[in-house]
Amino acid sequence: MTTMANATDDGFHVFDTTLRDGAQREGINLTVADKLTIARHLDTFGVGYIEGGWPGANPRDTEFFARAQQEIAFENAQLVAFGATRRAGGDAADDPQVKALLLSGAPVITLVAKAHDRHVELALRTTLEENLEMVRDTVSHLREQGRRVFVDCEHFFDGYRANAEYAKSVVRTAAEAGAEVVVLCDTNGGMLPAQVQAVVSTVLADTGARLGIHAQDDTGCAVANTLAAVDAGATHVQCTANGYGERVGNANLFPVVAALELKYGMRVLPDGALAEMTRISHAIAEVVNLTPSTHQPYVGVSAFAHKAGLHASAIKVDPDLYQHIDPELVGNTMRMLVSDMAGRASIELKGKELGVDLGDDRALVGRVVARVKERELQGYTYEAADASFELLLRGEAEGRTRRYFRTESWRAIVEDRPDGTHANEATVKLWAKGERIVATAEGNGPVNALDRALRVALERIYPQLAKLELVDYKVRILEGRTGTESTTRVLITTGDGSGDWATVGVAENVIAASWQALEDAYTYGLLRAGVEPTE
Amino acid sequence: MTTMANATDDGFHVFDTTLRDGAQREGINLTVADKLTIARHLDTFGVGYIEGGWPGANPRDTEFFARAQQEIAFENAQLVAFGATRRAGGDAADDPQVKALLLSGAPVITLVAKAHDRHVELALRTTLEENLEMVRDTVSHLREQGRRVFVDCEHFFDGYRANAEYAKSVVRTAAEAGAEVVVLCDTNGGMLPAQVQAVVSTVLADTGARLGIHAQDDTGCAVANTLAAVDAGATHVQCTANGYGERVGNANLFPVVAALELKYGMRVLPDGALAEMTRISHAIAEVVNLTPSTHQPYVGVSAFAHKAGLHASAIKVDPDLYQHIDPELVGNTMRMLVSDMAGRASIELKGKELGVDLGDDRALVGRVVARVKERELQGYTYEAADASFELLLRGEAEGRTRRYFRTESWRAIVEDRPDGTHANEATVKLWAKGERIVATAEGNGPVNALDRALRVALERIYPQLAKLELVDYKVRILEGRTGTESTTRVLITTGDGSGDWATVGVAENVIAASWQALEDAYTYGLLRAGVEPTE
Repeated sequence: MTTMANATDDGFHVFDTTLRDGAQREGINLTVADKLTIARHLDTFGVGYIEGGWPGANPRDTEFFARAQQEIAFENAQLVAFGATRRAGGDAADDPQVKALLLSGAPVITLVAKAHDRHVELALRTTLEENLEMVRDTVSHLREQGRRVFVDCEHFFDGYRANAEYAKSVVRTAAEAGAEVVVLCDTNGGMLPAQVQAVVSTVLADTGARLGIHAQDDTGCAVANTLAAVDAGATHVQCTANGYGERVGNANLFPVVAALELKYGMRVLPDGALAEMTRISHAIAEVVNLTPSTHQPYVGVSAFAHKAGLHASAIKVDPDLYQHIDPELVGNTMRMLVSDMAGRASIELKGKELGVDLGDDRALVGRVVARVKERELQGYTYEAADASFELLLRGEAEGRTRRYFRTESWRAIVEDRPDGTHANEATVKLWAKGERIVATAEGNGPVNALDRALRVALERIYPQLAKLELVDYKVRILEGRTGTESTTRVLITTGDGSGDWATVGVAENVIAASWQALEDAYTYGLLRAGVEPTE
Repeated sequence: MTTMANATDDGFHVFDTTLRDGAQREGINLTVADKLTIARHLDTFGVGYIEGGWPGANPRDTEFFARAQQEIAFENAQLVAFGATRRAGGDAADDPQVKALLLSGAPVITLVAKAHDRHVELALRTTLEENLEMVRDTVSHLREQGRRVFVDCEHFFDGYRANAEYAKSVVRTAAEAGAEVVVLCDTNGGMLPAQVQAVVSTVLADTGARLGIHAQDDTGCAVANTLAAVDAGATHVQCTANGYGERVGNANLFPVVAALELKYGMRVLPDGALAEMTRISHAIAEVVNLTPSTHQPYVGVSAFAHKAGLHASAIKVDPDLYQHIDPELVGNTMRMLVSDMAGRASIELKGKELGVDLGDDRALVGRVVARVKERELQGYTYEAADASFELLLRGEAEGRTRRYFRTESWRAIVEDRPDGTHANEATVKLWAKGERIVATAEGNGPVNALDRALRVALERIYPQLAKLELVDYKVRILEGRTGTESTTRVLITTGDGSGDWATVGVAENVIAASWQALEDAYTYGLLRAGVEPTE
């Protein structure tokens, strides 16, 4: 295993291709503004190279390069433009796609070249020799124009299996023409680590070129394949944030970098950057509008979450016994989960985490465990709704549920008018401080209307509610095979400017479930603000 | 790389622990009925061993073992009970937990033993010698009672790093006492493949015991770690369906088995079972009530989905150029994605897949691409809504959108009554075959009420609708940071007994988005039934 400590110089490249290859993921559709935001996050994280797209092939990518160079003062990263070698039978100097690469202004260019003989013949429809000439001509031309050039050898590993000599001749041609790095790509993602290690070792020995690795995750081994290539001498790794990419995805930047820094002892990021990893992973997920994977290595909210009763009791003795790294190294935190699998030890630890003293009251802990089990059977989940759990815990600890208001009834109406517009109106009837309040409000949807009506009803009595804002809203249908008759779970995250809290509601319909989560959200917000319960 | 062909005899164990270790995953909460269903799926898939739980520690697990042996006629799998070695200072024959293992009736027992010296001292609070005695005594006793025994060495790899001699002495003690397999567990999941391979090789050489591997995915390398152990001579792999498990999860059964069968050329499943893999993966996800991971290797719906324009045009030449295996080998299928990244080639292929002839009409294809881009900007997704896409495609191809009804307006009311019950009522006003129809219906939620009202309104005119059933309903909030004011996307799957189709709706609120998806669902259902559009 490599244990040399690379500083964050050019000796080892962390090359991110989220904006180019990552954007191929099903469900991702990036605007130029999205790309600029992601580029800023990646630069903050400290990757050495950011591949921004394919200028010329896509107007959005052309615009991205223009704006990125104007609007972003990169501190760590070099901007990279991606493009293909010139067309068969042409001249690189006259090729419009090659010109577009130069026009992008990117100081580094990654050229994709075919390295698999069958692809050259069937997809590119040219001769093997002309393909080498395309590589040589395009690399040389870009070098003459003062650009640094990396060459991606597409389908390298499949090509190596089919015709190793030809695959290696592409590597040699690229290196001889001036490519700084030749990247071996497992484009179809079918490789396993032992195979990658063997091929990279041989190619390195036979060509002497500086090699990189680009792995796809079709066997579930992209991270391991990337590390295997590093073990074999590759000094450039291509990854994407959260492993986004076509089909199954690409090698995930975060576990690759974490392994290099924490397991290999290499230095591939600026000081302090690794501790930003969890935040940056989640921020990028938010920009691309995908829920962050809860079970992602290192950065998932579950990555250091402990549920088993067996573990929970041992963790009380020493957390290091049950964690492969200190979660703070990657900006994550250990969490104890509340679940019906958990024993008393978990509930006690959770109480401590929330600052609710359960003391040595074993009967109380038993009641909480029983109540959690009962509610989870109905579809509630407290693992993701700490605020609702704390209300439950305090209710049991204090022997009664203390409230700030009591709901008499509510009603939501959604109307689609003949002109295509919608009216959403909600009415709530409730009691607070002995007073009966009826309030009606409109919103852009039924839940928004209910939220506003609740606020209108309570704000005079509890002015603290003015600060509250709904920051996230999630709906989960619990029994997918029964269509709209399923049980619905709603999770709401609410903030007050100084922090966020999550609450849960479960009911046979989305509006009723949302109401429950709203009730808990307001109750917890008032509790947090130090207001004394009145009901 | 190992290339020997193992038949599905006892020479190589595929050991599944979804029901025990997999159930530790955050968000999973299995009933006994769930466990029985999953056990049936795993048996059909052909794993050799199914670890069902910890009888004695958990009443549900005790019930599972009783019922599984009565209710399931296993064709391929042996049932395995999991439990700990006897208590320190006791006698295995008198240990209540050990008795519970025997009472479970399981023919095979996996005993978990501590193999890390610090865990023995701090968590188990006994001496290193007594821990060995606990292993020896418990294994011997269970063997004397006629059970096969496997021993899981918990925290083996961390323990090996701390005190290799002690870790190996646990392996030797277990094997000498009669354990058939000693499983090296990376309990904290911090290992990388090269390390696993080195340790397994050494332990195999030094102890001669039959070794197994149990890998957790905290470095993102659990599949690769499992294969690295096999490369080093392990002949027993512990995995979970879909990689479920504590924290990040366990080694995923499906890519491990697929690699062994398709990449190593081993035979570890019965004939034909691998082609059931995608179906079984999704079925188990449904039982545990988690959305199947769209990007899971081999079995995800995206695993063989192609989006990039670059690839789409080459795939027209030869699909094998862009896939590492034939998706049918694992029961999956190739899909062309419709997205604004797609060029004309993708739209043409998709039209062909749907049986809509776009001919050589380049202007038409261009209009479809433009329309898809425009709608995706608004939040629509056609990747997961083939039926809505086909309606769009036919609309463009035929120059007008042909409908079976026109909506004038609708209204949904949700009311929470003082007694805690809810009333959900919907009214629709629409035109069909020149007739104006007003219909009202109740439901268990507002979308269900709208669905019923639409059906009441149309069934007399289109009796074909009687067969339609909503089979899935998904809600996605598109802008998570703006609370209930976000855009909402609804995906509805509808079936008619002979097939399913998916439709999409996007609006500022969940009810309006659901209505759109319902409209498309009914329209497509009538189109599918061969009814001629009237509007």
